[in-house]
Amino acid sequence: MSTYPDYITALNLPLKDKAELDEDIQEAYDFLEENHGLIPNILKAYSFDQDKMRPFMGLYNSIMVAESELTMLEREMIGVVVSSINNCLYCQVAHGAGIRGLSGDPKLGEMIVMNYRVAKLEPRQRAMLDFSVKVTEKSYEITEEDRETLREHGFSDRAIWDIASVAALFSFTNRMSSALDIIPNAEYNYLFRTDPE
Amino acid sequence: MSTYPDYITALNLPLKDKAELDEDIQEAYDFLEENHGLIPNILKAYSFDQDKMRPFMGLYNSIMVAESELTMLEREMIGVVVSSINNCLYCQVAHGAGIRGLSGDPKLGEMIVMNYRVAKLEPRQRAMLDFSVKVTEKSYEITEEDRETLREHGFSDRAIWDIASVAALFSFTNRMSSALDIIPNAEYNYLFRTDPE
Amino acid sequence: MSTYPDYITALNLPLKDKAELDEDIQEAYDFLEENHGLIPNILKAYSFDQDKMRPFMGLYNSIMVAESELTMLEREMIGVVVSSINNCLYCQVAHGAGIRGLSGDPKLGEMIVMNYRVAKLEPRQRAMLDFSVKVTEKSYEITEEDRETLREHGFSDRAIWDIASVAALFSFTNRMSSALDIIPNAEYNYLFRTDPE
Amino acid sequence: MSTYPDYITALNLPLKDKAELDEDIQEAYDFLEENHGLIPNILKAYSFDQDKMRPFMGLYNSIMVAESELTMLEREMIGVVVSSINNCLYCQVAHGAGIRGLSGDPKLGEMIVMNYRVAKLEPRQRAMLDFSVKVTEKSYEITEEDRETLREHGFSDRAIWDIASVAALFSFTNRMSSALDIIPNAEYNYLFRTDPE
Amino acid sequence: MSTYPDYITALNLPLKDKAELDEDIQEAYDFLEENHGLIPNILKAYSFDQDKMRPFMGLYNSIMVAESELTMLEREMIGVVVSSINNCLYCQVAHGAGIRGLSGDPKLGEMIVMNYRVAKLEPRQRAMLDFSVKVTEKSYEITEEDRETLREHGFSDRAIWDIASVAALFSFTNRMSSALDIIPNAEYNYLFRTDPE
Amino acid sequence: MSTYPDYITALNLPLKDKAELDEDIQEAYDFLEENHGLIPNILKAYSFDQDKMRPFMGLYNSIMVAESELTMLEREMIGVVVSSINNCLYCQVAHGAGIRGLSGDPKLGEMIVMNYRVAKLEPRQRAMLDFSVKVTEKSYEITEEDRETLREHGFSDRAIWDIASVAALFSFTNRMSSALDIIPNAEYNYLFRTDPE
Repeated sequence: MSTYPDYITALNLPLKDKAELDEDIQEAYDFLEENHGLIPNILKAYSFDQDKMRPFMGLYNSIMVAESELTMLEREMIGVVVSSINNCLYCQVAHGAGIRGLSGDPKLGEMIVMNYRVAKLEPRQRAMLDFSVKVTEKSYEITEEDRETLREHGFSDRAIWDIASVAALFSFTNRMSSALDIIPNAEYNYLFRTDPE
Repeated sequence: MSTYPDYITALNLPLKDKAELDEDIQEAYDFLEENHGLIPNILKAYSFDQDKMRPFMGLYNSIMVAESELTMLEREMIGVVVSSINNCLYCQVAHGAGIRGLSGDPKLGEMIVMNYRVAKLEPRQRAMLDFSVKVTEKSYEITEEDRETLREHGFSDRAIWDIASVAALFSFTNRMSSALDIIPNAEYNYLFRTDPE
Repeated sequence: MSTYPDYITALNLPLKDKAELDEDIQEAYDFLEENHGLIPNILKAYSFDQDKMRPFMGLYNSIMVAESELTMLEREMIGVVVSSINNCLYCQVAHGAGIRGLSGDPKLGEMIVMNYRVAKLEPRQRAMLDFSVKVTEKSYEITEEDRETLREHGFSDRAIWDIASVAALFSFTNRMSSALDIIPNAEYNYLFRTDPE
Repeated sequence: MSTYPDYITALNLPLKDKAELDEDIQEAYDFLEENHGLIPNILKAYSFDQDKMRPFMGLYNSIMVAESELTMLEREMIGVVVSSINNCLYCQVAHGAGIRGLSGDPKLGEMIVMNYRVAKLEPRQRAMLDFSVKVTEKSYEITEEDRETLREHGFSDRAIWDIASVAALFSFTNRMSSALDIIPNAEYNYLFRTDPE
Repeated sequence: MSTYPDYITALNLPLKDKAELDEDIQEAYDFLEENHGLIPNILKAYSFDQDKMRPFMGLYNSIMVAESELTMLEREMIGVVVSSINNCLYCQVAHGAGIRGLSGDPKLGEMIVMNYRVAKLEPRQRAMLDFSVKVTEKSYEITEEDRETLREHGFSDRAIWDIASVAALFSFTNRMSSALDIIPNAEYNYLFRTDPE
Repeated sequence: MSTYPDYITALNLPLKDKAELDEDIQEAYDFLEENHGLIPNILKAYSFDQDKMRPFMGLYNSIMVAESELTMLEREMIGVVVSSINNCLYCQVAHGAGIRGLSGDPKLGEMIVMNYRVAKLEPRQRAMLDFSVKVTEKSYEITEEDRETLREHGFSDRAIWDIASVAALFSFTNRMSSALDIIPNAEYNYLFRTDPE
């Protein structure tokens, strides 16, 4: 008898199968299946209203996939640090897998989930994550001094926008997932677990 | 010598004037000027990268403007309650004005900014705002019992999705505004201030 | 149907009209009506026991009205910063109006209510408000170093006493107002709202 | 070499000896010396400005000494519970002695300083202290339901005013004492320490 | 270049190899190697002072290994819930592996690390973990009512002792590990990761 | 009618009298009676299971009694600072007495219980207590920088281990005492109260 919830969300919504969706969404699903081997459950949860799903996917891609000074791994790291503060199962499971996959370093995924301060990160990344913590916990206390610290670590103002955007995005998805009990695809738990050494 | 910052954001970004923007964005600006009398500064901040602005506007509209069981006033109320917890100047100023305009009740705007618990709201709205507070502060503690409370107040599961979405959206915009020091258009401070009595 | 409570306090107390009060209190009422155009509801709440009202008025005046290195505007700013942390409707409404009136700058009132850190204040005032936040949230962590910082900004020891006194006074009034649901005079919401520009 | 500060306050203020004070204050000092055996250091700290001392004493007496449904011991208990949350040395030392003296039960003083929840109090007193904790920590969340709980324990609305007043008063004095490092008279530490059994 | 610290503890202490240790400790090491395949790094950290290691091992075994109404899996679950609140890398990594091994359910390990409230646990276990959270965060607010809730779920008073003991033990080990930067054996990260389905 | 609980613990456990205990425990009791004049109630609470009591006593002695760079008074001070944060009656009462006895300075005991920051401690001790506060409240934020601060105050790495151990030990005992309502021996309240001056 499993302890893992067997639903996509605790809400009772008219979720749609792929075949019922519009063509552009079906193509996005195809892309995800080919490149990631699964459709994230958060998209399946959004399938009850494609007019809500589209801008959500758009925002996600404009922050997590678009060109940026931040590597994709760095963006995943920010996302998981924020999700750890918010104790969000979905985002820690899904993006913890992302860190393991992008870094090839499963132990890094665990450290970012559990306490990123223990990891031996370069100062630039540490500053990026410390800023993200402040955005998450006390955004109203952020001042020019905090932004200046990032600049001293080599981040451009556009990169600062991107750091804030990732932290803000997970502030959004963490709350959607936890408030509506959206459950991560079980597969994520097992991805990229092999010891590389 | 004014104490009000005279910039749109503290970041140094290549912001674009309306004439430099793509046609679809120009049309959106036209709509906003006609209907609200101004272009919100957060959009002007996003003007340095229209590929980021579009999905942000899309998400915003899909949550705040789209059809919903929640009235537009109720959505503004959730937004301001969340923004008050996060001490976000931009969103309290802009959406405080929204509450004043939609309700025709300036004192309601002040109460939602300062402490919504004092306002004499119907129990359904009070439950909606209490849930939003929990989404904001302790989303990881939300359980089926919390969602059930909303259902008992007459909210459908789709409306619960919408409540969570508004709270999550302002969790996003609050952090963008505070982390990047995006300043609300000065006009918002003065809108809908006349005593209706 | 208004959302604004129509009582002075949620407690059932034998409140007295002006005519029923002692002469010295009537004179104080006269002064307030002439100079501020209203009798603050917190005094009306205290009217059930004039022996309690007198020292409360006395303490208030000895801190907020008496001679001080701090301007009256600065004292109102401290009061509203404290009241914002405590989410006190009464004091934010009443003293937010005070800031608007004394400064002639309605936007300053909004910034102090919502997040004073955004306002472009002189460093001396910023230090004064940061100290007041610490007095409000973690007074037990205040050390000589904190007082020394104020001195470096030019505050005398007597001014430090006054800063602490204002923060302490609003720690008192915030709790009275919120615990007993004392409602600010509706008029405060509308005072000094005109754009000076 | 003592670890106990040897000053009355860390501020450098022109404190006055009894002989330098106005007659009414000298009389108050006489009363305190006769009845309590000492002049509380907080009054000595206020001696630099008798126009501030008078209303402070007045407020204190109108809350802590005036007629009330609450016994003086109950008022001291509220004061110490609030002061324990605020980690205020002055008020815990001085009013802990007050509890020991009024109750004849030194162990009660220790429990109220350290964790009042362990003490075997009557439900009425427990409710009074729980309410005071909420006034201290989250006054903005107090609702009619909280006041109704007090009424169910037999408190009149006037007694509720008094409970809130005591909690608010110590919110004031705790911050004055901690922010200005006002040190309690050493004698308080030793008063009423004898085991009555 | 690994991000995983390559030391056992950040302190510079004269750690001893197995061959340098007393016979009884060597036997304990033998037992652990045979049964768990490794010597936990926290013991290696303690090797600089065997007189400290012995009672630590003794306490650990008396709580985590001794007879109890609580299964070993349940004790590991409490330990990881506490460690998640304290963001302790060592204990989440090591005892997360423990949950995966004892339950044969890797996803359960992830849920307990990330947010146990999502897991579909029996009410008895949920009550046990909720109590442990309160012991961790606000032990001073625990009252007879909390203990009574556990009894209603079938726990004996001796089992309540054991629940408190596990939560208290991890309150100890979390702080030792984090304060002294004791790093979990890398192997733990990879143990029991295979999908059982 | 006393407010002090008349039980040793709120749990219903088969506590054993001295005569029923094993010889080694009886000897430990003898030692405590001779040297401290009482058997601490926490040991009496453990008497229901001597196999749990032994390693607890062993751990306690290996931290609080064993050789250390830290004096016994310093260890008691750390213990009481931690216990004050956790509002633990047992440990504040018992170890507050310890501070009074070891220092011969009753006022120091009160300051450490109420707010150690007021005491005029040498910088080395202040750093030791500040570190202990961080271990207690935010152990996961401790970094090499914090440990380096202790080294600069003259603490060896072994002494840092000892500081962390004392803070961790009281994190354990505070939670046992509060969760299980273990009541300190009444005598502790009265020990070492005499004014030495």
